[in-house]
Formats: sequence, C-alpha cells, structure tokens
Amino acid sequence: MPAEKLAIGIDIGGTKIAAGLVDGDGNISRRLQQATVGHDAAAVLATVTSMISELGAGITVAAVGVGAAGWMDPTGSTVLFSPHLAWRNEPLRAELEAATGRRVLLNNDADAAGWAEYRFGAARKQSHVVCLTLGTGIGGSIVIDGKLQRGRFGVGSEFGHQIVVPGGQRCACGNRGCWEQYASGNALAREARSLMAVHSPMAHALRDAANNDPHLVTGELVTSLAAAGDLACQELIIEVGQWLGRGLANLAAVLDPGIFVIGGGLGAAVPSLIAAAETTYQENLSGRGYRPFAQVARAELGPDAGMVGAADLARIALAG
Amino acid sequence: MPAEKLAIGIDIGGTKIAAGLVDGDGNISRRLQQATVGHDAAAVLATVTSMISELGAGITVAAVGVGAAGWMDPTGSTVLFSPHLAWRNEPLRAELEAATGRRVLLNNDADAAGWAEYRFGAARKQSHVVCLTLGTGIGGSIVIDGKLQRGRFGVGSEFGHQIVVPGGQRCACGNRGCWEQYASGNALAREARSLMAVHSPMAHALRDAANNDPHLVTGELVTSLAAAGDLACQELIIEVGQWLGRGLANLAAVLDPGIFVIGGGLGAAVPSLIAAAETTYQENLSGRGYRPFAQVARAELGPDAGMVGAADLARIALAG
Repeated sequence: MPAEKLAIGIDIGGTKIAAGLVDGDGNISRRLQQATVGHDAAAVLATVTSMISELGAGITVAAVGVGAAGWMDPTGSTVLFSPHLAWRNEPLRAELEAATGRRVLLNNDADAAGWAEYRFGAARKQSHVVCLTLGTGIGGSIVIDGKLQRGRFGVGSEFGHQIVVPGGQRCACGNRGCWEQYASGNALAREARSLMAVHSPMAHALRDAANNDPHLVTGELVTSLAAAGDLACQELIIEVGQWLGRGLANLAAVLDPGIFVIGGGLGAAVPSLIAAAETTYQENLSGRGYRPFAQVARAELGPDAGMVGAADLARIALAG
Repeated sequence: MPAEKLAIGIDIGGTKIAAGLVDGDGNISRRLQQATVGHDAAAVLATVTSMISELGAGITVAAVGVGAAGWMDPTGSTVLFSPHLAWRNEPLRAELEAATGRRVLLNNDADAAGWAEYRFGAARKQSHVVCLTLGTGIGGSIVIDGKLQRGRFGVGSEFGHQIVVPGGQRCACGNRGCWEQYASGNALAREARSLMAVHSPMAHALRDAANNDPHLVTGELVTSLAAAGDLACQELIIEVGQWLGRGLANLAAVLDPGIFVIGGGLGAAVPSLIAAAETTYQENLSGRGYRPFAQVARAELGPDAGMVGAADLARIALAG
C-alpha cells in the first residue's frame, strides 16, 4: 500500500475521541484515544487537532475524515447539530483545515460506520445496504450502488426516529414512540427497571446485580446477566430483538435492501437479539412469500468501523 | 420532436387499461382506453397487444413502457406479483415483445407516476424526491439524483405497508396497522362508515347521501360531501391528512427528501387533506428546528402520470 493512500480517521463520541491511521484496505496502523471534554467545542477542536498532528507527523496523509454523532450538511463541511456536543451550525471542516493545514471531510458517525461495513465488512460488494448501529439508540446508514445516501439536507437514515408506537415512550428528540425507544440499549435498561419496579419474582438476579438500585441497571448489565443464563434478562433481549425486527420490516417496505447489517455495542454483542430480530422481520415483512428476504448480518468491524469509514470516505472524496 | 422519440405508455389498472403515444416532453398525442378483464391474464395480454398495434401503426416508436400495480423484478421483465391481476412470476415483458415485435419495459405503476412527476411535473429538477399516490391505498416511489430507486429486488418504496400502529387495522397485505389503513381513500370510507355505525348526529349528511347503507360510503362520497360543506366529512379528511403527515415525518427520518409529491385520486382532489398532512409532518419531524422542512406539493400530472412515466422510462432505458 503506497503511503499516499493513508488517511486519518477520527471518531468523536460522547465520551471518547478515537483516531487512527487507516490504509486503503481499511487496516489501522496507528491509533490514539482521548477523553471527550464534555460540551466544550473549543477543547474538542484542540484535542482533535493535536491528534491529527501526532498521527500525521513525518508521513504523507491523503485526507482526514471525521465521524461524529450529529447532522452534517451534505458537503461534509458543517455540523448542523450534535446531540452530545455543543455544535450548532459549526463550520468544523474549515476550523480543522485551518488548524491542521490538511483536507478534512465530516460525516455522521453511523454513516461512516455503515460505509466501512460496505467497503471492508459484512456488506462487501452488496448493491443495496442498510446498516444499523445499535447502542444506547439507533444509528443508521444507507449505501445504494456504492454511494452513501445522506438525503437532500444530509440528515437522512435516522431510522431510530421513525414513530412506531403513536403516543408511545417519550424520546430525547421530542417525539413519542420512536423506534429507538423500543429497540436499543436504553430500551433494554428501561424495561429491566420496569420489571424490577413491579417487584417481579423474575427479576431477582437483576435486583441482586444492581443492588436493588434502578440507576445501576444498564443495557450491558442485562446482556451480561442474560449471557450468564438469567431467563428474565434473556426474555428482555428477545423482546428488544422483536422490536428491532418489526422496524427492519418497515425499512424493507421503503428501501428493499439486499442486506441489513447490525452493529454497535448491543448489536454486535448479542446473537440472540439478532436472531429474534431476523425471525420477527421475516414474520412481518409485507409481501412475504412473493419476494426474497434480505439477509440480516452482524457487523464485522466492531468499534473501529466509524474511524475506518470516516478515513475511507475522506480519502475517496479528497485524495488526488 | 423527432418521431423516433415517441414511446408508447400503458397503464394497467384494476378496472381499466389506458394507453398513449408519449413524446420526449411528456406530451400525449394519442390515447386509447379499454376495460381490464378481471383476473384473466391472457385477455389482458391480448388487449394490451392490440392497443400497442393500434397506437404504433405506421409510425416509429422507440419503446413500449408498461406500468401496473404489482412488483416487477429489477430488470423490468417479470411481474413477481400483482394484487389486481392473476400474474405470479409472469414473464410479461417477453410475452409482449413476442406478441408485438417491440421492445418493452415493465415498471410498478407508482414508480412510473413518480418518475413522470420528477421529469415533467411537480418535482422537476429536484435531487431527492419522494412521491406518493394516494388512492384506495398508498403507492410510492423514490427518485435520487435522477435515478428511480426500486431496491435490491425491485420491490421497494411500498410506503403504505410500513406498520404505524402495532396491532392496528388489518391490511390486505396480511399485516396489521399498515400506514395505508390510516391514510388512504379506504381509510376515509372506513372511518365514515364507523361514524355512521355509532349513529352519530354528526353523520346525518353521510347517512342521507348513502341511503343509510354503509356499502355506499366511499372515499369519493366523503370528499364530495366535505367539498359541499359537511363538517363531519371535513373532519374525517383532516384526520386522514394527519395520519398522512405522521407517515411523511417517518419517511423523512429515513430518506430526508427535498420534496414530497402527493398524487392519486385522493391526494390530487383534496387540498385540505394535503394542508393537514403538511402541518402534521412539520409538527412530527424528528429534529425539527435543526433541519429544513421538505416541500409538500400536490402532483401536477393527474391520472396520466403512470402512462407518461412508463413511456419515458422505457424510452430512456431502451431507445437507441
């Protein structure tokens, strides 16, 4: 791999910033990590700038790709809105280019992760790809005929904010009944707390593990208890998987993909959840029997997907 | 317009078959119409063949485009399934090409209609287009960057079969709670019958107009009473419009279009329904305030859209 094909990928999350040197095959040769400094946009800019300097010192880098939770404008220049950080109409691309002297491209983190799965992971060479990043919420991306589809204003593939239950659970987005309130790590934790709250005899392992404190119940706790054999937690996971499957059927009605790739902390970790999702998807697909089922696959690239995809998108858009 | 740019468009509906000679600007210079002979696929084939012969006699025709309710394979060759006609994995393209000696392309009728709105109607020159055909149900189409997006297996943009109410109204597709059970002419008629059934004093005009017979209540009856000033029917239309708007917000979360075009018998006829849909769409759009609203426009081409779009798609795909 010639050196000019190297690109820097940056994944800015709510708690940490990961950066790496990524080659044209998606391999990471160096990596750095820093804590995200809360809501301080200037501090994040300074941290990212210094990480780019360190990774790029003495070598030729084609471009810098940044993935972050939030909405980027269609040109990859401006952060329209970020849920975790203080960016509102922030010209982050120009700021980073001025600070580093390098060419920069911004992408939504889920778009970057989905692109990486299309290029190097579970969706290689597929023509119609829908990726989901299942963590505390749902991130999404669409790749059709080798092109990331971001929508007219750059804010498409926010699958988690489709309303699937009218008047349902309140969502941080301001609406009620969003899909990510039923199919996510947050949904898993909420339902587990709800089972504890009704003093269910099913929930004794949950209560013990959480010291009877609902605040200590997380999606990770539920998945670890399920893996250790706790029936109540296993059932909670199946329930979340079924909601996931219903939403996949809705997405298939709109997008008719050849493959769904499920990644993210929750998606990658729990095979029984994906299995339940696939079964429910097939049971709910409109027109089943007269059309093929899309494949439902687990993501292959793990937590590096966002960094790898951001670097690759920047290299393709900006190199040469 | 040179003669070789003429194409024949055929729109096969559940009750009638419309055919026309369409030029490269979407103008129809000749047209024919025949009744659809129920579930008799051979009779439909014979009728379409004779219409093509009549329209094409003595002139140069670039291609024949057929639009029909149902699912076509991605190459436009085979009808996978049609709700109104007896086609199941029917190689209609090869049959018509053999019968007429002309080149033929099949498309879903809503895809054809949406394409026509993109090329010659309300969505001209728009990069990200979502079209809905609102009649007894909901047909849909997606055009991104000048390309009709049909999905991996050719069966995408079936927006009406997204489940928006878990366990809701039963749908002909076999599922419950599909969007088209809440935002369509059928939904309008069902809700009107429901209002009559509870002997509502609001429904006196409906009862009179339908001779107290629920079987005589149709979407058209409700819209005509609403246009004549009946308050109950006006409210029923607003309710259907609000359901339409909720679904548009869901579609915007996935596709982020620049414009929604609403056509079809119900969509084209009732401005108050579209106005209610637009308001509800804006009130329910996830991320409102941090992103632009898509335009919500009425279709411009009326009932000819399917014929014009089918002809245009065939000419572009097949002509010289």
